[in-house]
Amino acid sequence: MLGARGKVGAEVCRAVEAAPDTELVASVDAGDDIAALVEAGAGVVVDFTHPDAVMDNLRFCIEHGVHAVVGTTGFDQARLDQLETWLADAPGVGVLIAPNFSIGAILMMRFAAQAAPFFDSVEVVELHHPSKADAPSGTAGRTAELIAAARREAGSAPMPDATSTGIEGARGADVDGVRVHSLRVRGLVAHQEVLLGTAGETLTIRHDSLDRISFTPGVLVGVRAIADRPGLTVGLDGFLDIE
Amino acid sequence: MLGARGKVGAEVCRAVEAAPDTELVASVDAGDDIAALVEAGAGVVVDFTHPDAVMDNLRFCIEHGVHAVVGTTGFDQARLDQLETWLADAPGVGVLIAPNFSIGAILMMRFAAQAAPFFDSVEVVELHHPSKADAPSGTAGRTAELIAAARREAGSAPMPDATSTGIEGARGADVDGVRVHSLRVRGLVAHQEVLLGTAGETLTIRHDSLDRISFTPGVLVGVRAIADRPGLTVGLDGFLDIE
Amino acid sequence: MLGARGKVGAEVCRAVEAAPDTELVASVDAGDDIAALVEAGAGVVVDFTHPDAVMDNLRFCIEHGVHAVVGTTGFDQARLDQLETWLADAPGVGVLIAPNFSIGAILMMRFAAQAAPFFDSVEVVELHHPSKADAPSGTAGRTAELIAAARREAGSAPMPDATSTGIEGARGADVDGVRVHSLRVRGLVAHQEVLLGTAGETLTIRHDSLDRISFTPGVLVGVRAIADRPGLTVGLDGFLDIE
Amino acid sequence: MLGARGKVGAEVCRAVEAAPDTELVASVDAGDDIAALVEAGAGVVVDFTHPDAVMDNLRFCIEHGVHAVVGTTGFDQARLDQLETWLADAPGVGVLIAPNFSIGAILMMRFAAQAAPFFDSVEVVELHHPSKADAPSGTAGRTAELIAAARREAGSAPMPDATSTGIEGARGADVDGVRVHSLRVRGLVAHQEVLLGTAGETLTIRHDSLDRISFTPGVLVGVRAIADRPGLTVGLDGFLDIE
Repeated sequence: MLGARGKVGAEVCRAVEAAPDTELVASVDAGDDIAALVEAGAGVVVDFTHPDAVMDNLRFCIEHGVHAVVGTTGFDQARLDQLETWLADAPGVGVLIAPNFSIGAILMMRFAAQAAPFFDSVEVVELHHPSKADAPSGTAGRTAELIAAARREAGSAPMPDATSTGIEGARGADVDGVRVHSLRVRGLVAHQEVLLGTAGETLTIRHDSLDRISFTPGVLVGVRAIADRPGLTVGLDGFLDIE
Repeated sequence: MLGARGKVGAEVCRAVEAAPDTELVASVDAGDDIAALVEAGAGVVVDFTHPDAVMDNLRFCIEHGVHAVVGTTGFDQARLDQLETWLADAPGVGVLIAPNFSIGAILMMRFAAQAAPFFDSVEVVELHHPSKADAPSGTAGRTAELIAAARREAGSAPMPDATSTGIEGARGADVDGVRVHSLRVRGLVAHQEVLLGTAGETLTIRHDSLDRISFTPGVLVGVRAIADRPGLTVGLDGFLDIE
Repeated sequence: MLGARGKVGAEVCRAVEAAPDTELVASVDAGDDIAALVEAGAGVVVDFTHPDAVMDNLRFCIEHGVHAVVGTTGFDQARLDQLETWLADAPGVGVLIAPNFSIGAILMMRFAAQAAPFFDSVEVVELHHPSKADAPSGTAGRTAELIAAARREAGSAPMPDATSTGIEGARGADVDGVRVHSLRVRGLVAHQEVLLGTAGETLTIRHDSLDRISFTPGVLVGVRAIADRPGLTVGLDGFLDIE
Repeated sequence: MLGARGKVGAEVCRAVEAAPDTELVASVDAGDDIAALVEAGAGVVVDFTHPDAVMDNLRFCIEHGVHAVVGTTGFDQARLDQLETWLADAPGVGVLIAPNFSIGAILMMRFAAQAAPFFDSVEVVELHHPSKADAPSGTAGRTAELIAAARREAGSAPMPDATSTGIEGARGADVDGVRVHSLRVRGLVAHQEVLLGTAGETLTIRHDSLDRISFTPGVLVGVRAIADRPGLTVGLDGFLDIE
């Protein structure tokens, strides 16, 4: 574990130790010697550190044949290109860069996009604590874009909506033709619902994130699979194998 | 039953016959002689007719000592005053005028207003078929006003909301300080959810109307109770006795 | 349309006429001459008739090169084998036999099975009107079996459950290791929810069937795709193309 | 605050300090001198201590004219009788003993019982983390009993249920004639839903407890109101004034 003393890192350490099929062999944080990872025989490194540190960490891992699962932020195209270059010289090594390790959120987005062309109407409701600054949430915006893209590709008709009178804002925000509604309610954490409807039936896909540790199962999915995925992968999505 | 051959009237007839404690003694519609009701010994008349006919119907009922449960629309203050005058001369007779016979909708509004002062945040989501012309729905607007009034009376603080950036409409319509969100989705009928939240917990009150016959239980509540409620009552609300 | 004067057939006729890309060219029911279909130039036949009639109908269609989308029940392995034999002599003709045309129900089951291995816990709640004789519903039973199969294949651990005291039945029915809960509530139609959870997050997939016409969109999916699917297909599932 | 260094006590201290209309004047825990409360001029004491300590604490408070809001457990009838005796000599002093300070849970139970006689069917679904030992939960059991009592008093008919075949447990536990279903899913905290239905419509009342701090708003309700409620009150319920 790289970044082992951060809040997130500590949770990952706990999860790796608790899982029956993974073992925590080394915990390293800023100031420690990264070589400890190799000495301890780590097969996979999990990196939740800092944009300033992560590229050096990854170069070291790739050079030493250690796979990496990375939740650290700050990856632009230049950084991804650099990683590709390094990985070209280490053909067996896998690196996963994921901005979101929540399995539930990833599946919600995927299922919503897959189902969208089969329904006449699709709307998104996201519900968060009232300290959130942006509305709609980033996840809701991305979900709406994925839905819109899937419907464009399938040639779906525009959604029906006879609204002719009303109060401004009632029908929510228009994100690429998909209506998105943002609730801000004390007591909530982070929740999202996609509602799809056609004649006589509706399908609802809802994700509730109730605790910050919701990223740990996704990290474990990455840790378990990365050895079989040499090269660079962006997004945990590709690791959630669904035939 | 007055208006027995209309869609609504037919459903009411069926419900009255099906209930173990009520009996349908006469079915009258436009063109029939209203006197048949009295001859049949009707104790209570249910009127789902037309604004043009209902006042004559009610004068007849009141004069003949028959209680009335009325779902016909078109009652303004002048008409209510007229009814009061007629009822003053028939002290034992009760008339219930109700714009909404859905018990679920009435209880949803009441509970939402009662609970509202105990929570930091309250928002309303209403979901309807996409052929609906107005957004938000009339029920959602009324619910928001009742919530706002209850919070004003209790001296509730303004609801927390840190939203500073976003897309127009994401936070819904502002009805008297209460956010209302309107979804229009094929396959839905008429649904509403009130979400209340405070530190660490939320309370959700949801009403789903899946079929137009949802007014019949409310009509039966009126029929059973009207004999004990002499005079004019507006709204079924007062009949839903809750100690 | 074969079985055009039945309740279901009438709905299908309406839906075929209403859709912009399909046309109703012939309506045939018991007593009518099935040859009318060929004379009218039907490219696809929809059959919602009777187990006693459907095999003759299908032999006729296959012999005349007309594709068939079939919602009639009563297909056992012998009948399916017979269809395969007939289709072997008509290489371009497609026949779809589907026990369930609800797109929402099919996607719910598929998504539930796909997601199940990524979560520690999965339970099924099905909610129906109180006149239903069986509990759990057939759909809930099948959903649980699909979930169990997906988890077995993935080598998922048994679900956590510390229940040690309680009242009999509280934890629902055990279907292949998956807990299934059946609610019977007046006012409901047919609803099902699959709840999946892992550390800190849950994913909920819910299907609400509010009206019997919910099969028509699925029939249209079949009608549009059958010409590109020669041979026998059982289940609409395979027609919901998701890459 | 008595029990200020416990987990619960610490949360209450934070909440009292954060609220605009309450002030924390003294924090006392095991080993401290309780007299500090009086010296600090406390008007109301909140006691989250231990069954062994709470009676001595309350005698002290009552003797010194300090109101008390008590979340400590272990009150049997003998203890309540003792409190009544002490309070008889301190006519202005109020003591609130509450086993549950969650406003959402209390309102859910109250609304469910109030609404129950107006619907044909009522069922309870409770959802908890899988480490919970009992099924159904204590709150679900109490809710079912309140619903059953309200229906008995109103003379409600038995609930309709045509289930004739099925798998054992599918219809849940029978608590006083009310069906209760218990889900145990990783990622959940503590949730409960009451579903009420009649012809064509349903009403759902749901409580989600997402964080242990959900008791603090209820404690503050008690602190604000106790001075106006001399004598002994058991249950926060009576403090949630709803005209």
